[in-house]
Amino acid sequence: MDKLNEQLRSKLTTLLESSDESKQALLSLLEGVEEKHNGNYKTYLAALMGISSRLMNENTYESIIPNRVLVHNPLGITHGGITASLMDIAMGSLVHQFLPKQQAAVTSEMKIHFLSSGTGSELRCLSTAILKSDTRWVVEANVYRDDQKLVATATGTFMIITKKA
Amino acid sequence: MDKLNEQLRSKLTTLLESSDESKQALLSLLEGVEEKHNGNYKTYLAALMGISSRLMNENTYESIIPNRVLVHNPLGITHGGITASLMDIAMGSLVHQFLPKQQAAVTSEMKIHFLSSGTGSELRCLSTAILKSDTRWVVEANVYRDDQKLVATATGTFMIITKKA
Amino acid sequence: MDKLNEQLRSKLTTLLESSDESKQALLSLLEGVEEKHNGNYKTYLAALMGISSRLMNENTYESIIPNRVLVHNPLGITHGGITASLMDIAMGSLVHQFLPKQQAAVTSEMKIHFLSSGTGSELRCLSTAILKSDTRWVVEANVYRDDQKLVATATGTFMIITKKA
Amino acid sequence: MDKLNEQLRSKLTTLLESSDESKQALLSLLEGVEEKHNGNYKTYLAALMGISSRLMNENTYESIIPNRVLVHNPLGITHGGITASLMDIAMGSLVHQFLPKQQAAVTSEMKIHFLSSGTGSELRCLSTAILKSDTRWVVEANVYRDDQKLVATATGTFMIITKKA
Repeated sequence: MDKLNEQLRSKLTTLLESSDESKQALLSLLEGVEEKHNGNYKTYLAALMGISSRLMNENTYESIIPNRVLVHNPLGITHGGITASLMDIAMGSLVHQFLPKQQAAVTSEMKIHFLSSGTGSELRCLSTAILKSDTRWVVEANVYRDDQKLVATATGTFMIITKKA
Repeated sequence: MDKLNEQLRSKLTTLLESSDESKQALLSLLEGVEEKHNGNYKTYLAALMGISSRLMNENTYESIIPNRVLVHNPLGITHGGITASLMDIAMGSLVHQFLPKQQAAVTSEMKIHFLSSGTGSELRCLSTAILKSDTRWVVEANVYRDDQKLVATATGTFMIITKKA
Repeated sequence: MDKLNEQLRSKLTTLLESSDESKQALLSLLEGVEEKHNGNYKTYLAALMGISSRLMNENTYESIIPNRVLVHNPLGITHGGITASLMDIAMGSLVHQFLPKQQAAVTSEMKIHFLSSGTGSELRCLSTAILKSDTRWVVEANVYRDDQKLVATATGTFMIITKKA
Repeated sequence: MDKLNEQLRSKLTTLLESSDESKQALLSLLEGVEEKHNGNYKTYLAALMGISSRLMNENTYESIIPNRVLVHNPLGITHGGITASLMDIAMGSLVHQFLPKQQAAVTSEMKIHFLSSGTGSELRCLSTAILKSDTRWVVEANVYRDDQKLVATATGTFMIITKKA
């Protein structure tokens, strides 16, 4: 793996000559990989998005991401794929808060309405379960920006499966 | 920005001590940032996913991503947020192939069914327009894995807007 | 049209020998046709369902249907197609409350989650707009039964069109 | 129930004075109730719509309804609620073709895109399963008019349940 280290050093050296924007994006990415390596995230996607979550109350799960250049689309607003990822992660995590250890939730389907541009410093997703059964949960998520305007709304179905021993 | 360069070098040095998996993920990310900086991609998301696309025929647009550790979920298969991002990017790009320069397409809504695990070496998305009007396009996308099994199917509505002069 | 009258009389005579359930359903239907003929409804579907609606406040539109045998599925609960029709009519009507005379709203897409059995004496649908733009409205609807349990939730996109002169 | 018979006769007498359109609609309804009473349909909704279905091949289920005044919206085209009902019934019936007697399918969610006006003499819905698992089926449906134009496309999730003994 000396070769891999060499590739990384070489690639970084090249990128140090690129734009400040590229380097800021790169710093966010390096930090994300570090967080993932340290076990603070279970996936690279969540780590690179810098998502932070907490159960606000029995029914509401809050998930926040910084709205950095890294997640923008060509119009300078949050990429729809990132908003979709935020909502998928947020809704799935909400369900996992309430499942016993031997069970897991798998996204079966999800529909998203994109309502307003993702501008401002961060996106805040609030998720709530609207159906809890033994076989499936139905969850709603709403993403807000700093000025409280609704950026997107989604509903998703999560199948409850029993993990293999 | 000497400070930023310093931060990047320091962060990389730390990460060179991490796992091979982390370093492979990091290499993919550095390559993605380079591609974005070189203008080969319009967004970091598409660059980091390593998406490559082409119009196969008048009705079908093909978009492929490598299925690397970087895009996996905790179960070692493609993260649903990545599949959603692939489909959003693919369907939107299809529409843009056919719009005049002064127009753009904005995702209005999208629904995705997740059908099979995203395993194998790459994911291949085929997009087709099922409605083309002056104000909105409706597009269908299907994601397949190496063994041709259907991983996900989606439909989306794209609003056609006229760019500001 | 004497022939049509004769057909109707003959068919009714036959049905008077059928079950009480059939005859109750038939009475609901005859009343619906009368209501439609008298101009109290714009469509047979709404008339036969016996839908009654009102704007509760600036943001909420209420639509109620009796939960009679006529709208049941084989399990004796409200047919999903009826619930879908109720929500489509309710959301579209909400939009029409706010449009100028020369404009109309056309359902572009709709997604419905069926959450609980439609039991009890009536179904009550509450609709709210979550996006109002010049070209499209996005509306949410929730259907409740007598005991306030959520039967179904839906979101829909309505395209705003200008009527031909 | 003499009273019910009396009500029905009286209501019909009134309606015989209404318009030919009303009477044509009424005849369709009387025929639908008769079909339901005779056991040719399991629900009034399907009977009144006059739906007829058949399994075309292992993967395709065809469901047709006449496009009569009874199912029109105020614009003289098929009501969106009717199209939704047709697709819900068609997709659910497809699943039931393949289930063992002790199982049933319940619509979990459904999304419909309305693409073209429902004009012409009949609407033809073709349904196909895209996922068949022990717990859920995902089905796609497309509705065509006489001139083969696509009127609507839908996907739905059907939960497989075991009937109570």
